[in-house]
Amino acid sequence: MADKFVSERNIRFLLYEVFDASSLLKYPRYADHSREAFDMILETALKLGRDLFKPTLREMDKNQPEFVDGQVKVHPKVKEIMQICGAGGWISATAPAELGGQQLPVILGFVPMFIFSAANYAGSVYPYLTAGAAHLIYSFGTAELINAYIPRMYAGDWQGTMALTEPQAGSSLSDITTLAEPGDQGHYRIRGQKIFISTGDHDGVQNVVHLLLARIAGAPAGVKGISLFVVPKMRPDDNGALVFNDVHVAGIYRKMGYRGAPITQLSFGENNDCRGYLVGQPNRGLSHMFQLMNEARIAVGIAAAGIASAAYYAALEYTQQRPQGRPLTARDPLSPQVPIIEHHDVKRMLLFQRAVVEGSLSLLMQCGKYIDLEKVLEGKEKEKYNLLLEILTPVAKSYPAEMVILAVSQALQCLGGYGYCDEFPLEQLYRDARIHPIHEGTTGIQGLDLLGRKVPMKNGEAAMLLIQEIEKTIALAKEETQLQPYARELEEATDKLNKVTTHLVSLAMQGKVDLFLADSTLYLEFFGIITIGWQWLLQALAAEKALKKNPTGTDINFYQGKLYTFRYFFQYELPKIESLAKSLLASNQITVEMKKDFF
Amino acid sequence: MADKFVSERNIRFLLYEVFDASSLLKYPRYADHSREAFDMILETALKLGRDLFKPTLREMDKNQPEFVDGQVKVHPKVKEIMQICGAGGWISATAPAELGGQQLPVILGFVPMFIFSAANYAGSVYPYLTAGAAHLIYSFGTAELINAYIPRMYAGDWQGTMALTEPQAGSSLSDITTLAEPGDQGHYRIRGQKIFISTGDHDGVQNVVHLLLARIAGAPAGVKGISLFVVPKMRPDDNGALVFNDVHVAGIYRKMGYRGAPITQLSFGENNDCRGYLVGQPNRGLSHMFQLMNEARIAVGIAAAGIASAAYYAALEYTQQRPQGRPLTARDPLSPQVPIIEHHDVKRMLLFQRAVVEGSLSLLMQCGKYIDLEKVLEGKEKEKYNLLLEILTPVAKSYPAEMVILAVSQALQCLGGYGYCDEFPLEQLYRDARIHPIHEGTTGIQGLDLLGRKVPMKNGEAAMLLIQEIEKTIALAKEETQLQPYARELEEATDKLNKVTTHLVSLAMQGKVDLFLADSTLYLEFFGIITIGWQWLLQALAAEKALKKNPTGTDINFYQGKLYTFRYFFQYELPKIESLAKSLLASNQITVEMKKDFF
Repeated sequence: MADKFVSERNIRFLLYEVFDASSLLKYPRYADHSREAFDMILETALKLGRDLFKPTLREMDKNQPEFVDGQVKVHPKVKEIMQICGAGGWISATAPAELGGQQLPVILGFVPMFIFSAANYAGSVYPYLTAGAAHLIYSFGTAELINAYIPRMYAGDWQGTMALTEPQAGSSLSDITTLAEPGDQGHYRIRGQKIFISTGDHDGVQNVVHLLLARIAGAPAGVKGISLFVVPKMRPDDNGALVFNDVHVAGIYRKMGYRGAPITQLSFGENNDCRGYLVGQPNRGLSHMFQLMNEARIAVGIAAAGIASAAYYAALEYTQQRPQGRPLTARDPLSPQVPIIEHHDVKRMLLFQRAVVEGSLSLLMQCGKYIDLEKVLEGKEKEKYNLLLEILTPVAKSYPAEMVILAVSQALQCLGGYGYCDEFPLEQLYRDARIHPIHEGTTGIQGLDLLGRKVPMKNGEAAMLLIQEIEKTIALAKEETQLQPYARELEEATDKLNKVTTHLVSLAMQGKVDLFLADSTLYLEFFGIITIGWQWLLQALAAEKALKKNPTGTDINFYQGKLYTFRYFFQYELPKIESLAKSLLASNQITVEMKKDFF
Repeated sequence: MADKFVSERNIRFLLYEVFDASSLLKYPRYADHSREAFDMILETALKLGRDLFKPTLREMDKNQPEFVDGQVKVHPKVKEIMQICGAGGWISATAPAELGGQQLPVILGFVPMFIFSAANYAGSVYPYLTAGAAHLIYSFGTAELINAYIPRMYAGDWQGTMALTEPQAGSSLSDITTLAEPGDQGHYRIRGQKIFISTGDHDGVQNVVHLLLARIAGAPAGVKGISLFVVPKMRPDDNGALVFNDVHVAGIYRKMGYRGAPITQLSFGENNDCRGYLVGQPNRGLSHMFQLMNEARIAVGIAAAGIASAAYYAALEYTQQRPQGRPLTARDPLSPQVPIIEHHDVKRMLLFQRAVVEGSLSLLMQCGKYIDLEKVLEGKEKEKYNLLLEILTPVAKSYPAEMVILAVSQALQCLGGYGYCDEFPLEQLYRDARIHPIHEGTTGIQGLDLLGRKVPMKNGEAAMLLIQEIEKTIALAKEETQLQPYARELEEATDKLNKVTTHLVSLAMQGKVDLFLADSTLYLEFFGIITIGWQWLLQALAAEKALKKNPTGTDINFYQGKLYTFRYFFQYELPKIESLAKSLLASNQITVEMKKDFF
């Protein structure tokens, strides 16, 4: 199996050369850190990826969680992962120091997340779901809740989850029916079913803490009647002892991939003794939950980029070693065969994978930096970064989530028949990757979010701010002779984005809501390609800058490879917007008019 | 699990309304058949698909073949499949009557192949690999070989295989090293290793017959020194008894999908007692084998379309039944949820799947008809259909093989989280489908075949003939008011095909062979979309014609659905050629110049 699963060189390039993470050190929030501390985090994360996560990638797939006697049993490594990620401060990496967190910039927090999910995605979700759930508690919960839950979660002793989906309420969260009846001791009695709950129960921790959406008795119908609760599997009693909280596991799913993590069906309050503790304001639960959902969406993007990275390096190693065939211009059968990486078509497949991995990771780090700037700035500037993040979140989730499928498929293809067999990791990565366009809001939901909510929000201000950011990059690229043609390409693409967006929004203004949103998934794809084109131009600028400083050794190859991959993106991927623009501008009525009886 | 896995109505539409299969009855070769006989074949095949193949789809996946004591054990259903397909004449469906075959037109032979692979792809390969191997024996073998092998293969007692790949010779067949040393009794002694041999050994039959490529001692290097042999696992001795022929199973592969069929590693002649019987002329083996490889490539296209069909109908059933969400224009949370097929984005995903399934099947039936016409015609006409088939074969393999991955992925997406779980068949179909771009020549190999061999062959005559066929369809469509805009779209697409082809061929003429073929995989994709566009226009013509006859009942819905799917293809899929043409015409040097050290 390939040793390499991420490029340390590329992470450093993005962190320091593209996004200048060190510039965050000037803000008081991050002043206790240093470039050396950042480097150490990267190195330690790589070591954990290699030694803790990666060795059980295959084992956790082959030995799935089992549901035995009402409890979920997982691979013993899970307990070790939680304990080490607790003790090492990985769960609390970006949390405030006063809660025992490392108070790291989020862009740095994304580094271990990317590395761990590239090494073993299923393994990585245990600590990161816990981190997200804890963040929600300390953002909206009472001091009592924070004190009772956060320390145990950050220690890796208690698992956090997000419990949203119900049998009748998946994409349509407004249909949640889990009931919360007010009790007399400040808590609520919870009753209902939740399904598809990741890490919803397992024996790698002492307790499971569900961040659960439910409806307080008498609340309005729809999303305006949903509240957020902490519902632990075991509740701490007045003496701090853990008492069973009437949370039952009804079963787990047998999945195609992502098998190392149990996805559970849960039943709350079968004996009318399930206590839930309100987090934040009543009936504002969905709005609170969106903090976690947005984080989870970006985490999906990171995980997808991670899996694509692992697949890319496995394919790269194979193509460097496997001799087969000869160059098109030297086909003498008596000459030795060449490694398949010499074939243009194989190079094209590898460039595609690298373009997806590094383009996605760049966008995700860009989001991380915006989150950090939003945290440390105030007023108009704070709002600017918040809006940029709002509009980029559906893209940062979906572009990697959709593209990882194609990228891993091409990686698998590089291995031919061996890619299809379980001697190599590609077939597992192919199965694991397929979850990403589904969970944390399907691609269709992201498309509706982007076009139906984010683009029109605040009179289009988020979209305008993004275009300004892209234009800044274009202006810089125009100053570099080598990059001018690409700057112009991206400028034309941005014009096309404006044109298509104006066309679609005009449909909405005419009241043609169906037609406005019918192709929102394609709009998301179109928008995503242009956004990644912007990230590639940013990276090309940094690579050109670095080459001017006369780098040596493998650095030259790195920057050259970066520029070839950039050119690949602009010449093979960016043109895909032509076809999408044609379909989107046509606004044909096909899917609106097609009747279900015609199928 | 969904009951429906193919559309009988659509098969009838293609057979009779688009391709007029009954018109073949006028040729002496097919004169003993009738429309009623054709109908009965379709009905019986549907019954077998439903009752014989489909019920074990999941079981054969869950209980993979095992390699025990040197022998491969498969699901007991395999023996039943082989016996029933033997007794029912399905293995010999298109073989000449004098060999005990049914002498069916090939276009009819494709019908059960499509149905069986939609029902259970792994189950279907046992009879069809046998049919292909037998065809090779009777095309090039001696009467003695024919008599010794064909009857047992057609009875389903003996399995046929194609044994090409070796550890060092996969895509590069010129590197085959398996040795054939002439013996003194008219046979050869075979020694060598073969890998990735489908159904290379199993206990569902009494014997396995390998159609094997080897090099006669002293033969020239490369493809001009490869010969074709029949190498049975058990050879019939002079008394007709079966004697072990020194063919050993070294192992089987653990695969991601397509698990019902064993893929074997074989070792021939370990004890210097493996006899091979020459088929056809020495050193012409690869040319002979191409008959079987071309058949196998089209069979892959059919199987891919079959899996896409099964996935489509499973998704369709789910989307009709699953309530979730509300129309964009009626979002009152107190109103009941609607079946998700009402959502435009879901309709778009379903239309995409249907466009792939029915577009692919149409092209495959088109190929079947060309094969039939080639068989019954003579001279210039025979050559015409042969050339059309030559140029269409890589497309008929690769378009379905690549698109089934995307189509099944969209089907799985229609089920959300359930699509990822094994309660529904989608996750298996997703795994099964992934083999198709790999086996029988990868997509990259098909691209090289199309652009490097088929387009330039006979001074471009095959390509010219195909363009003429497409132009005939365009001319007919121009006579129909409703179809005129689409006819013009396809005309423009054909112009673009000519332009891109001329550009690429000019590179070859300038001696820029690397650049000429660097993007041949993209050229294949580009060519494929236009070809499927042609097939959709053909289908639209037939649907418009039928609607003029005032059909009733469900037929109206069928034709309307056909026309919506046709429009979907032209407005969402055909525009993809814009982006591809842009990349292909750019002929950038990226993949030619990219150095392996830059990765």
